[in-house]
Amino acid sequence: MVEKLREAILERSRQPLLEFIQELHPADAAEQLAQLTPEHVAAFIELIGPSEALFAFEFVPFELQKETLGQLPRSILQQLISLMSPDDRADLVEELDEESRERLLALLLKAERQNILKLITYPEDSAGAYMTTDYAFLHPDVPTREALNQLRLQAPRKETIYYVYVVDHSRRLTGIVSLEDLIMAKPDQPVAEIMHANVISVRVDEDIEQVTKEMTHYDFLAMPVVDPDLRLVGIITYDDIFDVMNEEATEDMYLLANLDTDEKITTSLPQSVKLRVPWLLVNLCTALLASYTVSVFSETISRFVVLASLMPIVAGLGGNAGTQSLTVVVRALALGEMKFKGNSRVLLKQIGVGLFSGLICGLIMAGIAFLWYGNVWLSLILWMAMTANLILAGLFGAMVPITLRRLKLDPALGSSVFVTMATDTGGFLAFLGLSHLLLDHLLGSL
Amino acid sequence: MVEKLREAILERSRQPLLEFIQELHPADAAEQLAQLTPEHVAAFIELIGPSEALFAFEFVPFELQKETLGQLPRSILQQLISLMSPDDRADLVEELDEESRERLLALLLKAERQNILKLITYPEDSAGAYMTTDYAFLHPDVPTREALNQLRLQAPRKETIYYVYVVDHSRRLTGIVSLEDLIMAKPDQPVAEIMHANVISVRVDEDIEQVTKEMTHYDFLAMPVVDPDLRLVGIITYDDIFDVMNEEATEDMYLLANLDTDEKITTSLPQSVKLRVPWLLVNLCTALLASYTVSVFSETISRFVVLASLMPIVAGLGGNAGTQSLTVVVRALALGEMKFKGNSRVLLKQIGVGLFSGLICGLIMAGIAFLWYGNVWLSLILWMAMTANLILAGLFGAMVPITLRRLKLDPALGSSVFVTMATDTGGFLAFLGLSHLLLDHLLGSL
Repeated sequence: MVEKLREAILERSRQPLLEFIQELHPADAAEQLAQLTPEHVAAFIELIGPSEALFAFEFVPFELQKETLGQLPRSILQQLISLMSPDDRADLVEELDEESRERLLALLLKAERQNILKLITYPEDSAGAYMTTDYAFLHPDVPTREALNQLRLQAPRKETIYYVYVVDHSRRLTGIVSLEDLIMAKPDQPVAEIMHANVISVRVDEDIEQVTKEMTHYDFLAMPVVDPDLRLVGIITYDDIFDVMNEEATEDMYLLANLDTDEKITTSLPQSVKLRVPWLLVNLCTALLASYTVSVFSETISRFVVLASLMPIVAGLGGNAGTQSLTVVVRALALGEMKFKGNSRVLLKQIGVGLFSGLICGLIMAGIAFLWYGNVWLSLILWMAMTANLILAGLFGAMVPITLRRLKLDPALGSSVFVTMATDTGGFLAFLGLSHLLLDHLLGSL
Repeated sequence: MVEKLREAILERSRQPLLEFIQELHPADAAEQLAQLTPEHVAAFIELIGPSEALFAFEFVPFELQKETLGQLPRSILQQLISLMSPDDRADLVEELDEESRERLLALLLKAERQNILKLITYPEDSAGAYMTTDYAFLHPDVPTREALNQLRLQAPRKETIYYVYVVDHSRRLTGIVSLEDLIMAKPDQPVAEIMHANVISVRVDEDIEQVTKEMTHYDFLAMPVVDPDLRLVGIITYDDIFDVMNEEATEDMYLLANLDTDEKITTSLPQSVKLRVPWLLVNLCTALLASYTVSVFSETISRFVVLASLMPIVAGLGGNAGTQSLTVVVRALALGEMKFKGNSRVLLKQIGVGLFSGLICGLIMAGIAFLWYGNVWLSLILWMAMTANLILAGLFGAMVPITLRRLKLDPALGSSVFVTMATDTGGFLAFLGLSHLLLDHLLGSL
């Protein structure tokens, strides 16, 4: 399919290109376009015209969008940029270098330019950065018949007309009416009579993660965004939330695995190495601490070398249990399932889970060790050390993310480093420390 | 607020309850109801009537829904169940015990009963299990004016009327038209003229994960679900996808952390212990393998006990690097970012990242060890062993999820167990094995 597309572009034959764009969903057309060079995409847009190319172009990956813009003649570029939805346009402009940005802004109308400059000033993770200003709105006193006419006029330029916002003369948000409500109402009923007055909205500086929680809580198709004076400034739609949910899940998984959130499966090898090594070095520091703990007991180990082969079990199982508690708590925090007052209950429960899992797994391991080495004291020490370390795992697994959240940091950030440090060092300390104290018994009953 | 609610229920005063339900969004009302006993929720429904209570009741947690049903008088129960949307109703019936299910089904009309029985037969993760049968539809030959009238009649019973499906006389899906298209069209234009004919749909037995990928790819508000004869049987809406996306992210994070997907932050302590211990025991088996590897070299360790304190560093860093590669690959597979043919490239890249990170981190660690112990051979062995183990980490981190996917299993399932096993055992084997081979050098240069 790409081959035919490339051919048609090279032959400059418009008809097959128009068929291509009309037959495919824009998202699918964009996937094909993404396999072309920026020059070819630019030629494609020139051939079929900016308005036909628009929807597919908005689905094209960012990098290719940027490079394609550089290849377009001035007039086509101007049309395309003017047609783009304000949020996509602002995202694109934000990514451009200073020079391209100036050149592009110069092509736009003053109002469009101001709109972009305003949109790109919102902080990266705020509602403002994700919203579009293409929302449909009405005034409360229009009859629904007239309202539908107004929507027909607004529709082509709006992200959605299924939720329509009712604003007063100073654009303050006073109500919401769905398109369904409008077509169900009597034609001469004023909008004010059928609208819902208690509109749930978010502030433009609200964290997008919080917006996501609210939209999924209410199952909203769109969420209105207001400024500090409660004036409507934009909307966030369900498809933005699809993207945010994927981004957030990726972020949490990456932070738990000590990965930089900039890494992707397509990141180049040198770049991946650059992004991962700093995290590995952080891990190395905690490993050095664990190593130091072991070295303190080297005298004990040299007298009873079995300890060296059993100590990784104590540390390893603790690490696993710590990751379990950590993951449950991080996920619950991300999904908003944990209330602030519930923190101490969660902490106690994770410690309790550690205690009982430790008693069970420790006992099983003690049994295995007894079969292996026939040393009661060794088994007893293993049991105690594993139980202690799994309690520590539960404690740190819950405490670290809760503390990070209290400090207004991401609960997943670096948390696994802390937890592993606790379970490695704690595991070695408990196991080797007890062995050191009870060394005479250990050696005596051999 | 809950207190006032409880009071009004006990006093059986209808007015404040009606105000409560009309003022709050159903999702918020449900949050308040969730704090009451099933008896009180049942009394609430009786007082305000099933049709007023319906929307909030559909947001109430499953367990409470089930228990409330048992408290309702027959006639109210019948009304409430008939009003519920078919997918919510089917989900609820599926959870009931045999006896309650029979009693409830007996209250329904034959058509409703058959609908439920059909919905609950779809496999748990299929499109059929998530869809609703409350979709709006039209025939292709109606003029849009008439189409809007038909929609007005259908609307109150439909999940959404923003996407309307066009079906032929045997209900085969032939087109889709949005409510926006309909209100923009000329009143006497037939639907067939304005509809989009190339409808993207999913099969009723399609995996919901795949459906999610397609809906987020196309930014659809709803996805039509068809049977093997291409007849429309239901739709999946964007809010279902919100839930699925959260569930899937949780599942992947849990599987990577060796957690049972049934565990929640609210799971009781004994239940958590029961769910976690089996995974910890699996981990124990891999730890035993690592421990055995160490025990093979106990003679070497007892002659040069420094090895015992350095070996956890080699294994630990490998585990961390393995988790990094594993997480990147699992996430890319989940988001559909990896094409089948790209597998070997991904594998090679992760091995390459392991090689270079290993060379860098290993060299740094070799330097630290030299400052610590002043033994060139020890530093050299550390460097080699860490590099080898990080290569192994990249190899297993990529290979395990790719292999699981090829076997049609979840790429995250148990994958971290395999990777940890490889990096623990491999790390000890590389470090202690090299030390064993070069022991004379190690001891000689002390």
